[in-house]
Amino acid sequence: MTVYQEIEILCDNARAAAATLALADSQKKNSVLMRISQALLEDADSIIEANEKDLAFASENGVPSAMIDRLRLTKDRIESICASVRDVALLEDPVGKGEVWSRPSGIEINRIRVPLGVVAIIYEARPNVTVDSAVLCLKTGNAVVLRGGKEAINTNKSIVNSLKRAVSLCELDPHCIELVTNTDRESANALMSMRGKIDVLIPRGGKGLIQSVTQNAKVPVIETGAGNCHLYIDDSADIDMAISIALNAKCSRPSVCNAIESVLVHAGVAGRFLPEFAKVMAEYKVEIRGCAKTCVLVPQAKSATDEDYYTEYNDFIGAVKVVDTLNDARAHINKHSTAHSEAIVTSNEVNAEKFQKRVNSAAVYVTASTRFTDGGEFGFGAEIGISTQKLHVRGPMGLSALTTEKYLIRGEGSIR
Amino acid sequence: MTVYQEIEILCDNARAAAATLALADSQKKNSVLMRISQALLEDADSIIEANEKDLAFASENGVPSAMIDRLRLTKDRIESICASVRDVALLEDPVGKGEVWSRPSGIEINRIRVPLGVVAIIYEARPNVTVDSAVLCLKTGNAVVLRGGKEAINTNKSIVNSLKRAVSLCELDPHCIELVTNTDRESANALMSMRGKIDVLIPRGGKGLIQSVTQNAKVPVIETGAGNCHLYIDDSADIDMAISIALNAKCSRPSVCNAIESVLVHAGVAGRFLPEFAKVMAEYKVEIRGCAKTCVLVPQAKSATDEDYYTEYNDFIGAVKVVDTLNDARAHINKHSTAHSEAIVTSNEVNAEKFQKRVNSAAVYVTASTRFTDGGEFGFGAEIGISTQKLHVRGPMGLSALTTEKYLIRGEGSIR
Repeated sequence: MTVYQEIEILCDNARAAAATLALADSQKKNSVLMRISQALLEDADSIIEANEKDLAFASENGVPSAMIDRLRLTKDRIESICASVRDVALLEDPVGKGEVWSRPSGIEINRIRVPLGVVAIIYEARPNVTVDSAVLCLKTGNAVVLRGGKEAINTNKSIVNSLKRAVSLCELDPHCIELVTNTDRESANALMSMRGKIDVLIPRGGKGLIQSVTQNAKVPVIETGAGNCHLYIDDSADIDMAISIALNAKCSRPSVCNAIESVLVHAGVAGRFLPEFAKVMAEYKVEIRGCAKTCVLVPQAKSATDEDYYTEYNDFIGAVKVVDTLNDARAHINKHSTAHSEAIVTSNEVNAEKFQKRVNSAAVYVTASTRFTDGGEFGFGAEIGISTQKLHVRGPMGLSALTTEKYLIRGEGSIR
Repeated sequence: MTVYQEIEILCDNARAAAATLALADSQKKNSVLMRISQALLEDADSIIEANEKDLAFASENGVPSAMIDRLRLTKDRIESICASVRDVALLEDPVGKGEVWSRPSGIEINRIRVPLGVVAIIYEARPNVTVDSAVLCLKTGNAVVLRGGKEAINTNKSIVNSLKRAVSLCELDPHCIELVTNTDRESANALMSMRGKIDVLIPRGGKGLIQSVTQNAKVPVIETGAGNCHLYIDDSADIDMAISIALNAKCSRPSVCNAIESVLVHAGVAGRFLPEFAKVMAEYKVEIRGCAKTCVLVPQAKSATDEDYYTEYNDFIGAVKVVDTLNDARAHINKHSTAHSEAIVTSNEVNAEKFQKRVNSAAVYVTASTRFTDGGEFGFGAEIGISTQKLHVRGPMGLSALTTEKYLIRGEGSIR
């Protein structure tokens, strides 16, 4: 059997399971989530044992320590994963929500939210994404086909066994959670080509993964997480506030997609802002790559190339550019950004509005850190990812992003 | 200059125009629509002159008379097109609609609808689609790149001149309406590959066009209008009602996407329904292609192949199949349908609910004709098409389908 055929079968099984799962009510789905939380705790020892295999293999193969840390599961981490499963059980179920109206023709129209059907997730080494993705899909009545990275394959197999056991105990079809056990590039490509068998494919991971999916997928995709975010310091900015926001947006967690990569500074305030900014960044060992004017004001800055302004470092590196006008800042952002999150620090209301209206990104902030772009911070409870596309969903994706709508129409022999 | 480069320039111009158009308020956009209605009437003679060139060319080249009729513009038809432009001006503008909430962190979040940006439409011979698409895009603050069929190229050039004149008179950038004048397949392919330059591509036309777009496009697409629709006659159906709905759904306008192609009949009612159905269909000269049981009950029926059940005839041809259970009907529909519209005729409430829940199509009817799947009939005012995909929009697409959302966040130096 080829990898393609193998994945075709997984998808067909998931499709059949999705049909019965779609009929389960919220109470039933929540009971599955509670059973999953219990099963993962019961199976914690065997999951940790499987995880140790992956960790040993990772060490032998020189996997970077940051990645090994993300891969590691402990009893505490499993407990925290289970707590977040229970949190999802408490969220409102979007499925079945809707509205009803009547038309002069005599028909009554009911527009309701329904599951998408089969959701595929391609991700990398973090095993918590396995649980998280499965649980968010189940909660919204979707079957899920998971394709994690090779680094976590033993852990993922063990976790999915536990998840399937919980689903079976609740008398639902365990095929509603499927794991692709082949972790070669071939299996990812096969998954991307399952037109008609997968309703949406969501890549959760780094830039390379997302680019590969958006360029090769023949199935509908939701692009997530590419975050080349900007902070613009207007000439009317309060300098202390600007420094505090820059520090939070760049240094609180540089590896995440809502951290900033570039700071744009109005020329009228650059002389006051940049030396202070450079001092604070130096404390966090942030390497600054700047335009010519930046390099004058910040002697330790390296020279930035245009490539730098396109780069999502996800690291303690930041690009800086001095601009002459708000409009130059806007143009720079709309050209270089991945349309994720941008912020302006200003005390000028006209400039604040202009910036929010004219910057074409999912989230546009006035005097707040871009780090708030997050399902939890926005009050959505859960987050499947942060969409950087315009169709279907934009910005932090709550549960409803995993649903579509359907029209149920009633007539009394009505004809047109 | 290659076709690709030519279209790249059109798209870039449209993008720049979209940025200013997005700032126009509803009043401004409506005044442009009113000016368009006026301009088309003023320019009616030259548009009709251009249309005559297209008609002459079509006759010489043996274009079918039905298509020639769709291509033809008269003073009356132009007046009716202008009336529908004014109707769109009266519709509510979705742009700017939204909701505001605050979070414990101190940030205030405003989620608002904004234009998508640049919308591309690929369509065939009907010149009214040129006006209709341009007007719906303008109303929602989007620039539009139009690529119509070669049969209507002179008409389209003349119409777009008139539209651009109206836009200029209102002091907006006329590049917000662009026409691709090259009508070779190459130009359609180039348009499909404008990744990053087009926010959504909507094919409006026949099955071949839609398949070509969904298979080749590298830009986000909304699939529209493929309608292999079904009518299922339950064993509890009122026969008169079933006949009336079947007649309406099949014969009132067989060429449209919401007309039915197949009738499924429960075995328990086939003996009563099918002879009567065949008699009515014979009056409309509908060719029936049936399963073995159908052929017994309807002697004039031809034998149906599985291919027949996959076919959207858009003509006076209908497939018929006798099924043993509601579940068989559901399975047949979910396998063969394009997920557009399906209907059940039943007087059994349990069966009605089962059918609506388990049939995976955009619109699922109980004792009503599938012909109601239409933006106007649903009360949306305008219709850009009928989406048969699950992401972004499903079923009849109103104005909001041409918008996306954006988060505007305010803080007071807020950090996370």
